[in-house]
Amino acid sequence: MAETRHDFDPTAHGTDLTAMANAIRALSMDAVQKANSGHPGMPMGMADVATVLFSQFLQFDPQRPDWADRDRFVLSAGHGSMLLYSLLHLTGYEDMPIEELANFRQLGSRTAGHPEYGHAAGVETTTGPLGQGLGNAVGMALAERMLAARFGKELVDHYTYCLVGDGCLMEGISHEAISLAGHLRLDKLIVLFDDNAISIDGGTDLSCSDDQIARFRACGWETQQVDGHDPAAVAAAIAAAQTSDKPSLIACKTVIGFGAPNKQGTAATHGAPLGDAEIAAARSELGWEAAPFVVPDAILAAWRAVGAKGAGLSAAWDARLAAAPAADQAELKRRLSGELPEDLEQIIAAFKQEIVAEAPSVATRVASQKVLNALVGALPELVGGSADLTGSNGTKAAGMQVVTRDDFAGSYIHYGVREHGMAAAMNGMALHGGILPYGGTFLVFSDYCRPSIRLAALMQQRVVFVMTHDSIGLGEDGPTHQPVEQLAALRAIPGLKVFRPADAVETAECWELALRSEGPSVLALTRQNLPTVRSEHAAENYCSWGAYILASAASQRQVTLLASGSEVQIALQAREHLQNEGISAAVVSMPSWEIFLEQPAHYRDEVLGPGALQVAVEAAAPFGWNRWVGLDGTVVGMPGFGASGKYQELYEHFGITAEGVVKAVKAWL
Amino acid sequence: MAETRHDFDPTAHGTDLTAMANAIRALSMDAVQKANSGHPGMPMGMADVATVLFSQFLQFDPQRPDWADRDRFVLSAGHGSMLLYSLLHLTGYEDMPIEELANFRQLGSRTAGHPEYGHAAGVETTTGPLGQGLGNAVGMALAERMLAARFGKELVDHYTYCLVGDGCLMEGISHEAISLAGHLRLDKLIVLFDDNAISIDGGTDLSCSDDQIARFRACGWETQQVDGHDPAAVAAAIAAAQTSDKPSLIACKTVIGFGAPNKQGTAATHGAPLGDAEIAAARSELGWEAAPFVVPDAILAAWRAVGAKGAGLSAAWDARLAAAPAADQAELKRRLSGELPEDLEQIIAAFKQEIVAEAPSVATRVASQKVLNALVGALPELVGGSADLTGSNGTKAAGMQVVTRDDFAGSYIHYGVREHGMAAAMNGMALHGGILPYGGTFLVFSDYCRPSIRLAALMQQRVVFVMTHDSIGLGEDGPTHQPVEQLAALRAIPGLKVFRPADAVETAECWELALRSEGPSVLALTRQNLPTVRSEHAAENYCSWGAYILASAASQRQVTLLASGSEVQIALQAREHLQNEGISAAVVSMPSWEIFLEQPAHYRDEVLGPGALQVAVEAAAPFGWNRWVGLDGTVVGMPGFGASGKYQELYEHFGITAEGVVKAVKAWL
Repeated sequence: MAETRHDFDPTAHGTDLTAMANAIRALSMDAVQKANSGHPGMPMGMADVATVLFSQFLQFDPQRPDWADRDRFVLSAGHGSMLLYSLLHLTGYEDMPIEELANFRQLGSRTAGHPEYGHAAGVETTTGPLGQGLGNAVGMALAERMLAARFGKELVDHYTYCLVGDGCLMEGISHEAISLAGHLRLDKLIVLFDDNAISIDGGTDLSCSDDQIARFRACGWETQQVDGHDPAAVAAAIAAAQTSDKPSLIACKTVIGFGAPNKQGTAATHGAPLGDAEIAAARSELGWEAAPFVVPDAILAAWRAVGAKGAGLSAAWDARLAAAPAADQAELKRRLSGELPEDLEQIIAAFKQEIVAEAPSVATRVASQKVLNALVGALPELVGGSADLTGSNGTKAAGMQVVTRDDFAGSYIHYGVREHGMAAAMNGMALHGGILPYGGTFLVFSDYCRPSIRLAALMQQRVVFVMTHDSIGLGEDGPTHQPVEQLAALRAIPGLKVFRPADAVETAECWELALRSEGPSVLALTRQNLPTVRSEHAAENYCSWGAYILASAASQRQVTLLASGSEVQIALQAREHLQNEGISAAVVSMPSWEIFLEQPAHYRDEVLGPGALQVAVEAAAPFGWNRWVGLDGTVVGMPGFGASGKYQELYEHFGITAEGVVKAVKAWL
Repeated sequence: MAETRHDFDPTAHGTDLTAMANAIRALSMDAVQKANSGHPGMPMGMADVATVLFSQFLQFDPQRPDWADRDRFVLSAGHGSMLLYSLLHLTGYEDMPIEELANFRQLGSRTAGHPEYGHAAGVETTTGPLGQGLGNAVGMALAERMLAARFGKELVDHYTYCLVGDGCLMEGISHEAISLAGHLRLDKLIVLFDDNAISIDGGTDLSCSDDQIARFRACGWETQQVDGHDPAAVAAAIAAAQTSDKPSLIACKTVIGFGAPNKQGTAATHGAPLGDAEIAAARSELGWEAAPFVVPDAILAAWRAVGAKGAGLSAAWDARLAAAPAADQAELKRRLSGELPEDLEQIIAAFKQEIVAEAPSVATRVASQKVLNALVGALPELVGGSADLTGSNGTKAAGMQVVTRDDFAGSYIHYGVREHGMAAAMNGMALHGGILPYGGTFLVFSDYCRPSIRLAALMQQRVVFVMTHDSIGLGEDGPTHQPVEQLAALRAIPGLKVFRPADAVETAECWELALRSEGPSVLALTRQNLPTVRSEHAAENYCSWGAYILASAASQRQVTLLASGSEVQIALQAREHLQNEGISAAVVSMPSWEIFLEQPAHYRDEVLGPGALQVAVEAAAPFGWNRWVGLDGTVVGMPGFGASGKYQELYEHFGITAEGVVKAVKAWL
């Protein structure tokens, strides 16, 4: 690969790289001091490295922050947010005036304590929970390779730079991320390690003796070590990394809090304001005479010149795009906009029609795979994968080619047993744009990737988690593999949609809703076969109401049976039994609480039947169900963890049966 | 260190190691076939390694499975459970007769799909979720070193062996575990890696290119590679590992499903029965003529002789214990029994008395540290730590010495930024016995260690998670660091107690309850100061009721305000405002839902006041609160994720204030 090194000469502006870096230092220590809260140490320590990267390498255009072929810069060590905010201000992002920096960490500012995606242009992802940014960066670098394979390097050809700290590299997710990146040889991923040997508790030698260089090499990375305060050495290392055929680690030996003469090199600079006296001493040490939040003209001019170079780069890309085949132009624009192809609705409708005609008994994980088989042709932006459960999750649709280090033209990723790395990479792909990622594991292992699911919800990224084996219905694998509390735990995450379809028809409807959703979705799918329960009105997407009456009460409704997924059939059987005993019950299928909550109150009342007794049936912890059944209702669910055995016996054992529901109803009536 | 290699000669019993290993293979393939479910590949592949380990090295006594100084054997690759069950049966564990193996994966058997702690003697920990066993093993090996430092090697001197697969080593938790073990140089930890290069999706080369040997070396481990089907080589490697001054990895090159001639070496043997034809072929290949579940006499005799050696080992230990100082004997027995010192109650009472006298305004995280300061002298089994947030979590009590690789006499662990590894190690320490571990991080990062918290709950291990910064009350760090859904998500886990104390008095009470609990606890603690709200009846542990009336209604109760933690003071203020407006309200402090649920119905009714309107106040997702407030009640909580800003402003912004509560009450009344 070729270097993409810029010509940039700060002396033309009457300054130098060190002074430019000192601007970052001054802004960072002043903003933290004013907020009386924050982390000055990292921005001050990595200011030199960041200055070299931004001034000589990073291809970006502050006037067009969403230019698709920009290099990505991910601040995985998100606590050092003032580094990023300083760079955005200095290089001329319009929504980052100096007032925003002075308003650091205040309610309503764009300068949150940790970088928040969507708050300010140039923030590529939300970081702070350590290691997540590294996982995102792997996804972004993978997206770049896949889109380049599809659209060519004329249109897609950029680097992903990621700044990590010691903490990021201690987190387990870092292993999953670097191992996957090394395996796929993501050669345009360059990680800058702030190797300052300080963590919050003190020196990293309190808790860590890893040889990070050897560790990355063991995972197939190119590695270099440089003095992070030597601009020429840093520049040479980045240039070398650009030409490697592997992902690159550059361990930058730095002094945390560089420039604060009495505190630098210690944990004292990590997460607290330096204090007025030390800031004065640092100003003297750095030769920085400007007042707080003032950047001397020459230095600001130099930084703005760095930002201004981007206009030419993005304009050149516009020209290349205009010269590309019209079909490619349209398709790339469609994908980047997130717009779905028009035939999605017909595909889903045709699929449902077929299901209704066949009325199969089929696991929803299998139904999900059939939906994917039907969709992938029309939605080339779909990129699937699984954390080593491809066959079990049904995530590999017919015709999908596997992505390998030698060929990125495929659309299926073997993520390995790396649920956390997978979810973070999916977020990264969605953030990159042009890709709609979905990935599978068992529902119980949502716990392994929960921090990334949370960030998908916080950032409202369109990613789809395909989580199968969603209850004791998985049988013999036993309690370690049987989700019980996971449905509740996921429903508790704001901004996440949890779908639990009852049959193949609902599975198709939930997939459609997940694909059309602004944010992330979880599809909870069964291992075991389920009958087709939804045959009427299959032309409409009933799941789009969150919950609906699947079977009405034969006469004046006395009981409303609420169920999701595999328990809907049990509710239907219970309804029959109750009817035989003269008790009139309706069955409500409730694939999504979140969507049902968005419906108007009168519709919710119609569905729940406030005059009736509400009984919920779900093979999961009852936690949360009182939202729908009230204190008077009851829940037929799991009293605790599951057990190992045949699933039919487990349902009997835990009383999650039609008889169990009838008994519960009669006990309350 | 010295080798602990046994004399064992199978020829004395008329058999050999290969035939002994074939017994494991036959039992495993037959049990999986009969269950029509399970994983034969790993047990067949690792049978030779396990046979060498158990017959020549492992110090254990099947007649005394709880002998404290036994070597630990952890099957981290828990799907290979038939390996363990076979070994337990063959070596003569009484509760593992052949019938249990024939009943593999059936409801009510001791032979669950994955090894379940407490179901059968000899199962040291519950495994199945990959990588967890490795994390447990690190905790066990650490516990051994710490107890040896306290009680001497005459009483505590054993190895921890852990069998891991490719999947364990792909999981992020493996990085945290091996990095911590390498840092602490846990030289009596020996990991046997089933290096079969097969995962569920196919060859590991689909997803992984790691050089595991280099990776472990980078983390400070001794490493060896052997042919896992060469008993002499395996024995030599284990002997060498025993004498290393570092933790050891032995990568055992194996053939998955070894002995099944048409399927071995492929993913087909991993997770499905081999089928009758292939089993017949394997019998022929292995020269195994016995019927299913029959072990030829000579082979069984040899295995039983292996088990019988343990009696002498455990008896010798008894003698050493009897010769130890009486105080040491008593203290070791007390610690192993889990019995708490008698003065715990007085210490807590004295602490509370002092708090009531001072009535401080103090963060509950600080109160927690003060409780610990008071406790550590009396409870030497307490081992604290933090995932690099020692000062923030307040986990390092006065006088606690830090454990280092050179000195294990301390009781405080710098776990590094490794929440998941910390929690798994804590589980391992608790399982080992003799130690009562607690560890800290921010509440939001409970997500990072959730799989281990779940296992603590499933195994009912006494571990205490000290989770501070428990709401938007942490302020400027913003939404990535502000827990919102974590309280609900933790409350949803069966068998876990979640405590959220309202002041220093309640903090002491919750600590006492956590220490006395059979299972795991989470203490959710504030960053911000809280007034002392509990001054009356401080001699009693009111938190032991889960919830209680902190302030009664002045007249006939119209409203019950339910709150936890930092919102209790808000509820108290709201009560005053309401009273001024002629509305009579009681305030209920609700530190633990789980304990409140265990109270008799009449007490719960008395507290909740069914005739009154229930209003909950908690700076968290309302999810789950309808359990207490019903459909008619309301929740003043977080509508979604938090924000970055001063915490006082955030409370105002989200309406979690006395005024907000009053408004909610008036809207409903």
